Amino acid sequence: MSSSTGHLFRISTWGESHGGGVGVTIDGCPPGIAITQEDIQHDLDRRRPGQSEIVTPRNEADKAEILSGVFEGKTTGTPIAVLVRNKDQRSDAYTEMATRYRPSHADYTYDAKYGFRNWQGGGRASARETIGRVAAAAVAKKVLAELAPGFEIIAYVSSIHDLNADVDHDTITATQVEANIVRTGDPAMVEPMIARIKEARSEGNSLGGTVECIIRNCPAGLGEPVFDKIDADLAKAMLSIPATKGFEVGSGFAGTRMTGREHNDPFYMDGARVRTRKNHSGGVQGGISNGEAIVFRTAFKPTATIMQEQETVSSAHESTVLKGRGRHDACVLPRAVPMVEAMAALVVCDHALRQRALRGDIGLQPPVPQKD
Amino acid sequence: MSSSTGHLFRISTWGESHGGGVGVTIDGCPPGIAITQEDIQHDLDRRRPGQSEIVTPRNEADKAEILSGVFEGKTTGTPIAVLVRNKDQRSDAYTEMATRYRPSHADYTYDAKYGFRNWQGGGRASARETIGRVAAAAVAKKVLAELAPGFEIIAYVSSIHDLNADVDHDTITATQVEANIVRTGDPAMVEPMIARIKEARSEGNSLGGTVECIIRNCPAGLGEPVFDKIDADLAKAMLSIPATKGFEVGSGFAGTRMTGREHNDPFYMDGARVRTRKNHSGGVQGGISNGEAIVFRTAFKPTATIMQEQETVSSAHESTVLKGRGRHDACVLPRAVPMVEAMAALVVCDHALRQRALRGDIGLQPPVPQKD
Amino acid sequence: MSSSTGHLFRISTWGESHGGGVGVTIDGCPPGIAITQEDIQHDLDRRRPGQSEIVTPRNEADKAEILSGVFEGKTTGTPIAVLVRNKDQRSDAYTEMATRYRPSHADYTYDAKYGFRNWQGGGRASARETIGRVAAAAVAKKVLAELAPGFEIIAYVSSIHDLNADVDHDTITATQVEANIVRTGDPAMVEPMIARIKEARSEGNSLGGTVECIIRNCPAGLGEPVFDKIDADLAKAMLSIPATKGFEVGSGFAGTRMTGREHNDPFYMDGARVRTRKNHSGGVQGGISNGEAIVFRTAFKPTATIMQEQETVSSAHESTVLKGRGRHDACVLPRAVPMVEAMAALVVCDHALRQRALRGDIGLQPPVPQKD
Amino acid sequence: MSSSTGHLFRISTWGESHGGGVGVTIDGCPPGIAITQEDIQHDLDRRRPGQSEIVTPRNEADKAEILSGVFEGKTTGTPIAVLVRNKDQRSDAYTEMATRYRPSHADYTYDAKYGFRNWQGGGRASARETIGRVAAAAVAKKVLAELAPGFEIIAYVSSIHDLNADVDHDTITATQVEANIVRTGDPAMVEPMIARIKEARSEGNSLGGTVECIIRNCPAGLGEPVFDKIDADLAKAMLSIPATKGFEVGSGFAGTRMTGREHNDPFYMDGARVRTRKNHSGGVQGGISNGEAIVFRTAFKPTATIMQEQETVSSAHESTVLKGRGRHDACVLPRAVPMVEAMAALVVCDHALRQRALRGDIGLQPPVPQKD
Repeated sequence: MSSSTGHLFRISTWGESHGGGVGVTIDGCPPGIAITQEDIQHDLDRRRPGQSEIVTPRNEADKAEILSGVFEGKTTGTPIAVLVRNKDQRSDAYTEMATRYRPSHADYTYDAKYGFRNWQGGGRASARETIGRVAAAAVAKKVLAELAPGFEIIAYVSSIHDLNADVDHDTITATQVEANIVRTGDPAMVEPMIARIKEARSEGNSLGGTVECIIRNCPAGLGEPVFDKIDADLAKAMLSIPATKGFEVGSGFAGTRMTGREHNDPFYMDGARVRTRKNHSGGVQGGISNGEAIVFRTAFKPTATIMQEQETVSSAHESTVLKGRGRHDACVLPRAVPMVEAMAALVVCDHALRQRALRGDIGLQPPVPQKD
Repeated sequence: MSSSTGHLFRISTWGESHGGGVGVTIDGCPPGIAITQEDIQHDLDRRRPGQSEIVTPRNEADKAEILSGVFEGKTTGTPIAVLVRNKDQRSDAYTEMATRYRPSHADYTYDAKYGFRNWQGGGRASARETIGRVAAAAVAKKVLAELAPGFEIIAYVSSIHDLNADVDHDTITATQVEANIVRTGDPAMVEPMIARIKEARSEGNSLGGTVECIIRNCPAGLGEPVFDKIDADLAKAMLSIPATKGFEVGSGFAGTRMTGREHNDPFYMDGARVRTRKNHSGGVQGGISNGEAIVFRTAFKPTATIMQEQETVSSAHESTVLKGRGRHDACVLPRAVPMVEAMAALVVCDHALRQRALRGDIGLQPPVPQKD
Repeated sequence: MSSSTGHLFRISTWGESHGGGVGVTIDGCPPGIAITQEDIQHDLDRRRPGQSEIVTPRNEADKAEILSGVFEGKTTGTPIAVLVRNKDQRSDAYTEMATRYRPSHADYTYDAKYGFRNWQGGGRASARETIGRVAAAAVAKKVLAELAPGFEIIAYVSSIHDLNADVDHDTITATQVEANIVRTGDPAMVEPMIARIKEARSEGNSLGGTVECIIRNCPAGLGEPVFDKIDADLAKAMLSIPATKGFEVGSGFAGTRMTGREHNDPFYMDGARVRTRKNHSGGVQGGISNGEAIVFRTAFKPTATIMQEQETVSSAHESTVLKGRGRHDACVLPRAVPMVEAMAALVVCDHALRQRALRGDIGLQPPVPQKD
Repeated sequence: MSSSTGHLFRISTWGESHGGGVGVTIDGCPPGIAITQEDIQHDLDRRRPGQSEIVTPRNEADKAEILSGVFEGKTTGTPIAVLVRNKDQRSDAYTEMATRYRPSHADYTYDAKYGFRNWQGGGRASARETIGRVAAAAVAKKVLAELAPGFEIIAYVSSIHDLNADVDHDTITATQVEANIVRTGDPAMVEPMIARIKEARSEGNSLGGTVECIIRNCPAGLGEPVFDKIDADLAKAMLSIPATKGFEVGSGFAGTRMTGREHNDPFYMDGARVRTRKNHSGGVQGGISNGEAIVFRTAFKPTATIMQEQETVSSAHESTVLKGRGRHDACVLPRAVPMVEAMAALVVCDHALRQRALRGDIGLQPPVPQKD
């Protein structure tokens, strides 16, 4: 269904930017996983507005309440419901938008789909909907920590506009990313990126960019052949984040300009472990993880809301103009980082449980045939 | 499940490159749709090997048989099963591969996942699996033709290696694409692309590229908010095709280097219809179609099988080398075109039925509020 | 997943008897359906404890709050979240039960399943979980009222212990059922049933019984062949209600003692409408509704909690005894009536939307072939 | 979807009684399970017509062919497709039925649903559709044999018309059931039941009855709280079999006439194992297996096709009469036994894999708390 994802670790989000709140229900979480409200809150705080000088100053406390499914600090195996009340609502900032379609927003398409729309804020298209995803992913990461020792997801801003970060996939740490407000992996790019965002904001303009994500110590064997390939599910998960326009794994679009000779990743033995010399595959072969780092990038378009006058039409289908108001991010990239990590955690957690159903365990290495 | 896709128009493929055959079951197809074995055969012939001098000479007749769900030339509303027997099997060409992991293939990951593998050919990772998808899509296109008059999907090769086609999205026709064996949309690129493929083949090397796809006259309102966005489902569908590494819709990765001012698509009235001046959105806003052409690109890596010696390991986990043998495409792009179209048709057909469940009809324009 | 049901009109419940509350999210509800908090509250009040002298005196206000998916009194097409806070919690009444398995309850099986259990109250096995279902069904009934004019679901107590109600399926009304606190359809049985329940309660014992349900004006054509037959889905829905042990449709088990001659329902023309002379089929043939009243019965075992000492074992696996305490229904049947209606509404609503996806409309009569 | 069932061990059947054949695809089967065509054939032979003097003489060879998913005698973890060609088709026996609705068959409801029908034979409503289920269950039973040692499903005819079998749940064996052509568990009832069936057939009449099923050594902990209770899924599975009208588990409808005192199953320790003194629960508490034998009964109505003239209407909606012709079972009960076993195996296998996903293992006993 439209608001649920995952086959075994299944989450359902609900809620709009304006209304009683937003939330998520997690169904299929294994029992006995230690989780606290603080674990969830920590991740929510990374995605919320108002964290730094370069994101929207809208101050949303985003206080998470676990309503069910956790008893004495551990998951019970039954649905975990998390609620975040809406607080800082200024629907007056949006009245004009009630009757004018914001260019490159979802206003017109929601009307086309439903014939009807909650015009207060962005409805379900609001980035606020991602609160439920981030909360659910906090639980997914706890599950993965038990299933796959050393499992780690690190995302960072790899470009803003035409500024590209230079990041070493093998050494980058979450601490390095979190140490700067842009959440880029390249210290040399922090100041230029901040300056570029401030410049766009001062012009009432906006910027896009890319987020790269590394998943380390993902066991080999996750992902299903054919339709539910792990990279196919990651692609869908990333394109489900607001404002995304592209996804690539491993060599991605650049790989199309290589020959097979250049592109292929030779196998070799690293002790008892099968490894590849390079990682153009991005950790996925035939839709199944091969034990190398899973590496992918997601493209975010520039924020649609700009503080400049734009041509548009009214919901009465008459020509008009619209100038954005209210408090918006000139660049969503820093706040997109935890969303990318969250969606990645949800995808991998679901596939880990699917593999456990199939084999009784995950992270199995292929058996070594006996020699005669 | 791994081998099924779609929520209402749901297909399940089965079969390996070696064994009894391959096929598909389509569940949820509306009744009364005219379909013949020839309709399906026509599409299968476009994807099969042996069509031209630049694809693998392996000659697979790929004769489709409709086993159920069609009566007196029309769908009955019950499952449509399609069977294609395997014919031209030379498993001896693969014996060496039984014990050596082909670099950048799915051999190792299948062993890691299942602890066991049908090493004759590529198993489920074989491009032969896509026969079922193409057969199912032949039916989906018939359904869409009834639901959405003028609906049209056209895909073409937009690049091979570093050769880029220059194509006008508005005027390109299926006939133009099918008129050349590369299936590119740019007549000027036909000969250079053919020459480049032949050159790679003669070196035992391989090439990748991109396929662009245009969906015309897709009604506004298709796609679901949040997880099942139509572009998210297209992304997953494309990444489920063998050898794909990336997906982008509308402006895609290039859009990340624009400002919001440049990127936003202003609305205007084109008679009674709401339209956008540009189409950086690629026909999708907030995950829902807006009535403009849906435009997306898919990246295909160079074919993994090359006729050169490569470093690898055996299934006994010892270092070894492997040189590809058998008959393989040096470049899958021409044959990927019908696969891209097929997956796109399946995604849109499913969303069209979902919208019909929600509203009783599709293609509804948003109501125009009455003026007082 | 365990806590979700429905393919297009999909609900997910969450929450335990003790904890932050209980609730439901409805995904896939068509837009534009008028619904208020009061509509939901009305149905919740019918299922809650404390309504009359024969149900548990536990007083749960069960105040429903719609958190999302409704705007200006109408559904928006996006998820509708409903929350009911837990209030009257006396977990001390249950401490003994923390360590002793209550016979014929779910205490032991939850421990067997999860290795861990929220022992405060019944957890997810509590009848309190059904609040979410009843709330969701209030919305489903609104949808059905728009899709199928005259659509009506009436359930009533058809037996308690060995007291059987004599009810005319054609004439019974919801008002007649609601007019007595037992919710039986036979006025002559009201006093005997009340007396029987009071007698059982005074002995610390409990009683079971059956609920019969009539669905009127359900369009022909709902239900899917093979696995998702409408009566199969009703069977599953009924067996998902706590304390149920059986389901039968139409002639049910009694029909097994008829011959085909006696059992078959001859068709005849009633004006332009195809009807059956009898209704042993219970309104369903081949898993698909035929336009006659759908009639089914559900068996409820006697309440497991009794105020008498019973043999059991502790969670430490030692022999012990347990005597129920707290406030419990000696007979759940009166409160089961709205639960049966709710589950029936959810099943039919889902199938109505599935049929609309397939045909663009529901309630289509089969076309009459033209005569030459 | 209508023709698929199961969440992890998922099967999709296809095919009509007339057409290319019938079959099934099994998705989600664990790899490495030994299975042969003969294993499947053995079970198919138990359900096919023409086995004995009391079932339809129609001779269907029902030769199963495994098309995919099995390599060198073991499942590969990828979809297993099984095909059975249609052979003995006499569609002329049905021409009359093309235009006249057979009473209590699915002819009219299929027309109502689809506006269109394959009138050759029963289409998807034919018992022939169950071939796919029985084939899939042969695989499911192999999986269960590996997951749950000692696991056993035994079904038998517990009544025909008003003749009731007296069977000891604890001692009945599959060999005893298979030793008589009625497949009843009570030797004393074999001759009376055969005589009753022959009598009905000689009159052109038909009979119904009940099938009881015992599942032994099912691990405790299978089944999900709330909607996917194991008995709810069994109820749905049984009601999906053609001609069924009822389901009851454990005490069933008879249990509604007991008091709680009589009905409750006290727990006691049987060595290290928690057991119940009685089994009114039928092996299921709160929708989850408790380790005792799962016991349930399914009601089958008398066969709808009778060789007597019946009132009906034509598809042109005119009054007419119809007399059955062709070769039909006067009583489906003997052939229903393997169908009941098959559906039970599919349900339990799916739940076993779901439990393994949740816990990494099945058959876990609840942990015994340590004493201080």
